[in-house]
Amino acid sequence: MEEKITPRFDKLGGLLPAIVQDAASGLVLMLAFMNEEAWDLTLKTREAHYFSRSRNTIWHKGDTSDHVQRVKEILLDCDADTVLLKVEQVGGAACHEGYASCFFRRLEGDGWQVVGTPVFDPKEVYKRE
Amino acid sequence: MEEKITPRFDKLGGLLPAIVQDAASGLVLMLAFMNEEAWDLTLKTREAHYFSRSRNTIWHKGDTSDHVQRVKEILLDCDADTVLLKVEQVGGAACHEGYASCFFRRLEGDGWQVVGTPVFDPKEVYKRE
Repeated sequence: MEEKITPRFDKLGGLLPAIVQDAASGLVLMLAFMNEEAWDLTLKTREAHYFSRSRNTIWHKGDTSDHVQRVKEILLDCDADTVLLKVEQVGGAACHEGYASCFFRRLEGDGWQVVGTPVFDPKEVYKRE
Repeated sequence: MEEKITPRFDKLGGLLPAIVQDAASGLVLMLAFMNEEAWDLTLKTREAHYFSRSRNTIWHKGDTSDHVQRVKEILLDCDADTVLLKVEQVGGAACHEGYASCFFRRLEGDGWQVVGTPVFDPKEVYKRE
């Protein structure tokens, strides 16, 4: 069964949430948002593009760090309002703080415990910025 | 290192995106949103509560299907604006359409292919509604 469905950008004011998961390990790396242009660029280049809410612009992930995300698989949810990208994370870390996953804090009691070890030193990777 | 950080509900107008992952298999099940009340209820009961945008109310996942999500682990991302819940999905399926994961459609060429097999028949599970 093949279906023509367009992801719904209208439910969050033009932004589609994208969950990013490491295709090989299954580690959830991050959540980001795509506008239609970022979605089109992702399909065209097979490298993840998002919309940066803080910078209000298209964000080609890895643009300054070279740590691009090569998209291996794209899944759409039942309501067509969220996508799941399975990616190869170049450089091994998705987080700008150097961790493999942005989800590097775990709730323990009523505080957050840092789990995992940084893969890189952000000061080295982002020195071009 | 233990940190006191409050998740940021302000970045999406009072809603915090929550990625839900099966704690055992690593399968990404769904994305939902929590308001502060849903967050508090989740912490208190250790069963996932969300905010339903379509019904504009608190949504205790599994309330009508008995397929609750027992929360095993909660992780917070670098920007403190998204959480990742690792859960035990009672009944084996998170999706109201009967699939284990809401992400049951994969992009193939320019269409969506249904992948996976329904775990239950929604008409049976939701017959109380």
